[in-house]
Amino acid sequence: MSDQSTTLADLRGVVRSFVDERDWRQFHSPKNLSMSLAIEAAELMEHFQWIDAAESRSVANDPQKLGAVREEIADVLCYLLALANELELDLTAAVRDKMVKNATKYPADLSRGRADPPT
Amino acid sequence: MSDQSTTLADLRGVVRSFVDERDWRQFHSPKNLSMSLAIEAAELMEHFQWIDAAESRSVANDPQKLGAVREEIADVLCYLLALANELELDLTAAVRDKMVKNATKYPADLSRGRADPPT
Amino acid sequence: MSDQSTTLADLRGVVRSFVDERDWRQFHSPKNLSMSLAIEAAELMEHFQWIDAAESRSVANDPQKLGAVREEIADVLCYLLALANELELDLTAAVRDKMVKNATKYPADLSRGRADPPT
Amino acid sequence: MSDQSTTLADLRGVVRSFVDERDWRQFHSPKNLSMSLAIEAAELMEHFQWIDAAESRSVANDPQKLGAVREEIADVLCYLLALANELELDLTAAVRDKMVKNATKYPADLSRGRADPPT
Repeated sequence: MSDQSTTLADLRGVVRSFVDERDWRQFHSPKNLSMSLAIEAAELMEHFQWIDAAESRSVANDPQKLGAVREEIADVLCYLLALANELELDLTAAVRDKMVKNATKYPADLSRGRADPPT
Repeated sequence: MSDQSTTLADLRGVVRSFVDERDWRQFHSPKNLSMSLAIEAAELMEHFQWIDAAESRSVANDPQKLGAVREEIADVLCYLLALANELELDLTAAVRDKMVKNATKYPADLSRGRADPPT
Repeated sequence: MSDQSTTLADLRGVVRSFVDERDWRQFHSPKNLSMSLAIEAAELMEHFQWIDAAESRSVANDPQKLGAVREEIADVLCYLLALANELELDLTAAVRDKMVKNATKYPADLSRGRADPPT
Repeated sequence: MSDQSTTLADLRGVVRSFVDERDWRQFHSPKNLSMSLAIEAAELMEHFQWIDAAESRSVANDPQKLGAVREEIADVLCYLLALANELELDLTAAVRDKMVKNATKYPADLSRGRADPPT
């Protein structure tokens, strides 16, 4: 199984089964899951806390560090999928709609190479 | 396009195109993207800051609030996909591997209905 | 030494000495310190992740849990003081100015018992 | 009033009055306040999201940017003081105790110029 062959629905199903087998939906209010997401995002950030941008890019070539980062990324994604499950939101549609909105806020020709919205 | 028919690779491609069209990879160090993830996770959390668990569940039935939450969820996912793109990580494999690890830490029979790992 | 007799400047001095003795200012860019603050805030939040508001209040009466929470609060404060040191900001003035602004946004009579700004 | 002449207790009193005048203690469970802290920390971080360490240091010399950062720092501190008020924790003692612990984890002579704990 890889990103090439796995749908968002497949991955949501994996998380749903894990949660259901443990009767954890009772803890999975959107409030709690939003905290979980932020907590895991902070744990991910911790790996990049004291290093600069260039060093953080080189993590891609350090199997041990990359393995640790990969686990945090998985944690963030699992909670995001759990939240989508609770709110019954289609993530693909949410991303596509947001991209349309972002394309208006950041027109490609005016945003090339600048992080802030054009003024 | 929906979660049913969209692969993780498809969605990663959408984000990759958006980033490339704006020449934004220069900003997308893993350090910066981990900050972005945490910032968007906090914006999501803001919607649930002062309400309790039950109220946060009822957001699913409030189209206006759900719409706002859906946008924040899309933002978190976009940055997560951008980070996976930068680090060239397969998210499906990362989630599956983490699930195996979690299943050991939280055995289904010992973890039913309890949020903390069994001791 | 207690909050009754300790000035903000005193406490800032404690943090400054600790940092200087380790030659850590080189790591203490505002960017990095803002990440540190967010990371420690998330570690604090972790203690309240799966419990409801009432249970989180009862932490005040649980010496062991309170001790753990107290350490995270200290971490957040230390990084905040370190950041004020780096930016040479007077925290007392910053809080007082923000309170004036907040008092306009949340007039006492219109904000009594409601978390959101009056509309 | 400045950090030189203001005690932690003074500043806690300012926050306590503001909260009491609005009858906001009902919202100020430690759970909610920990979320607030993390949210404000993220808003602070947002100012440093796309810039590098050196640029983030130069914010100290940019009155407009510094003003915005100063407000976020005040927000973080206000929520931290509100949390200390709710849990009836002495912040000065908490910081001093944590510093003793940190001094053991990061001995000055072994930690000079390195961000990670010595191994």
